[in-house]
Amino acid sequence: MPITVVGSIAYDAVKTPFGERERMLGGAAVHFALAASFFEEVRVVGPVGDDFGEPELEVMRARGVDVSDVERVSGGKTFFWRGEYGWDLNSRETLDTQLGVFEGFQPKLSAHSRESEVLFLANIQPDLQSEVRRQVPDARFVALDSMNLWIDIARDQLLEAIASVDCLILNDAELRQLTGKPNLVSAAREILSWGPAGGSNPTEEGSDGARRGPSVIVAKQGEYGAALVTPEGFFALPAYPLETVIDPTGAGDTFAGGFVGYIAAHTHEPLSDELLRRAMAHGTALASFNVEQFGTERIERLTGQEIGARVQELQEITQFSGAPAKLRV
Amino acid sequence: MPITVVGSIAYDAVKTPFGERERMLGGAAVHFALAASFFEEVRVVGPVGDDFGEPELEVMRARGVDVSDVERVSGGKTFFWRGEYGWDLNSRETLDTQLGVFEGFQPKLSAHSRESEVLFLANIQPDLQSEVRRQVPDARFVALDSMNLWIDIARDQLLEAIASVDCLILNDAELRQLTGKPNLVSAAREILSWGPAGGSNPTEEGSDGARRGPSVIVAKQGEYGAALVTPEGFFALPAYPLETVIDPTGAGDTFAGGFVGYIAAHTHEPLSDELLRRAMAHGTALASFNVEQFGTERIERLTGQEIGARVQELQEITQFSGAPAKLRV
Repeated sequence: MPITVVGSIAYDAVKTPFGERERMLGGAAVHFALAASFFEEVRVVGPVGDDFGEPELEVMRARGVDVSDVERVSGGKTFFWRGEYGWDLNSRETLDTQLGVFEGFQPKLSAHSRESEVLFLANIQPDLQSEVRRQVPDARFVALDSMNLWIDIARDQLLEAIASVDCLILNDAELRQLTGKPNLVSAAREILSWGPAGGSNPTEEGSDGARRGPSVIVAKQGEYGAALVTPEGFFALPAYPLETVIDPTGAGDTFAGGFVGYIAAHTHEPLSDELLRRAMAHGTALASFNVEQFGTERIERLTGQEIGARVQELQEITQFSGAPAKLRV
Repeated sequence: MPITVVGSIAYDAVKTPFGERERMLGGAAVHFALAASFFEEVRVVGPVGDDFGEPELEVMRARGVDVSDVERVSGGKTFFWRGEYGWDLNSRETLDTQLGVFEGFQPKLSAHSRESEVLFLANIQPDLQSEVRRQVPDARFVALDSMNLWIDIARDQLLEAIASVDCLILNDAELRQLTGKPNLVSAAREILSWGPAGGSNPTEEGSDGARRGPSVIVAKQGEYGAALVTPEGFFALPAYPLETVIDPTGAGDTFAGGFVGYIAAHTHEPLSDELLRRAMAHGTALASFNVEQFGTERIERLTGQEIGARVQELQEITQFSGAPAKLRV
């Protein structure tokens, strides 16, 4: 089932211990769309400036991404981010953020983008997320990402946006910050308690776009992987072990693209934990490729076969035999 | 096969957001021994002062731990540690450390403790670890824990101690610090390269106590779980998800006790990755119980049945189906 994503389309300048790029294609919507494109048609909604190049649009088109709702703002400049990572890539410093055309962005979705039954609200100002959500009232599965900045300065608007989605995808520290709960499980359970009573399956909800609240919580844990909390249970998956990580930029959005993309491709199945776990594995696999090279370089030449092989490897590195211990006492 | 452990036997004063204890039984050797005692006989080597109580010794004896090599230093004071944890328990501050009888400690193992074929060198000054290692030359499996302090101030001695063991258990940040390698996999591979060429099975090594170097690397990742790197491959296991963590003190040593204890109880099997993975699951289960209450309180009343049930739950929360994705492109 096609997916609409709204979020940043950007140029990134990134420096890591392994090299740097001065101006490469980036942005949450781009990373998401490229990853999700392996599973379903993706429609990207977001603004770019006059400076945004045809080759960058072509990167998305080449993966079958529908870019007709990428709005070119005359006289505007494309969102720009400059950041630098520390030696172990676990810390990063934002050196420059230029909102450019994102200032004053008013999302206007085409009829085509409004028809998608799966929607991803990438990390942007929460009111914009709510506005887009209203324009896609019939979505059957809506996921939302955000960041610490919005928890700090636009908490109420963020809570309103969260109340309109089925799935919340955040860094684990952000889940704690959002809820004031000290650990992942308690934070996730708190958010689930805001959602539909009893945690009913969101795809079975009325399609009126009314408040429903998340019944699927995904905690992104960076190099440690990701965890899933639903009313049904808990699941955790380590990141795929790489000897060399080149550039983590976009890993979270690439994960989300694999995760939501997999769900979108399986809307004929009930949204069970079993399905969500498979989706987590595919998101994890996609993210692991993303960080192997700068920006979108690796995903651009990724193949479906490689994804499948890595999902299988993820299964192998997490399995253990349940043979009971010979206990002494 | 019986296990000898050398390390701290301590009184801890701990404050967490969930309460505090002014003087409770602690220390790496204690946490390790209580956990490992579910699998094998454990012989504890370490000094205590006049102030160390019979009830504390009885806690260990009650779990079948051999405390005859616990050396009571006349006129001495037991090792004391005071710490306080931050709100999400991910940060902790050491407020006081009194080495007491550990200053000037010269380990003298009884014939009984020297006979153990499995040895755990808990986190103490690396020269002491090497000294104990020399006193147990016939050990078939030796594991070592350490900490950032020794990497900082006694790096050469630590490297020498590491060269005499089969298994290194460190926090992942310490693995990076020790090797200067920016990520877990590269750090672990670096250490494996110091070990026996080709990563031969250490239990098949000559029993002359000669340098061999680790062929098993365990990265402790705190709330995220633990990872295992061997020449054979990689394995990662999340921590057991708890809604409430009361006191993380001793979690790492309890993990090590479950891990090494499981291996010691299965020395009739080859030291395969398959066995090591099961050992990781048991270490993870033990650690999850440890943090549910202060100090040794939870482990003291733990049952083998509870351990088995939690290992099974760990298996359930890490499994996913490998059903291949329906890929679009």
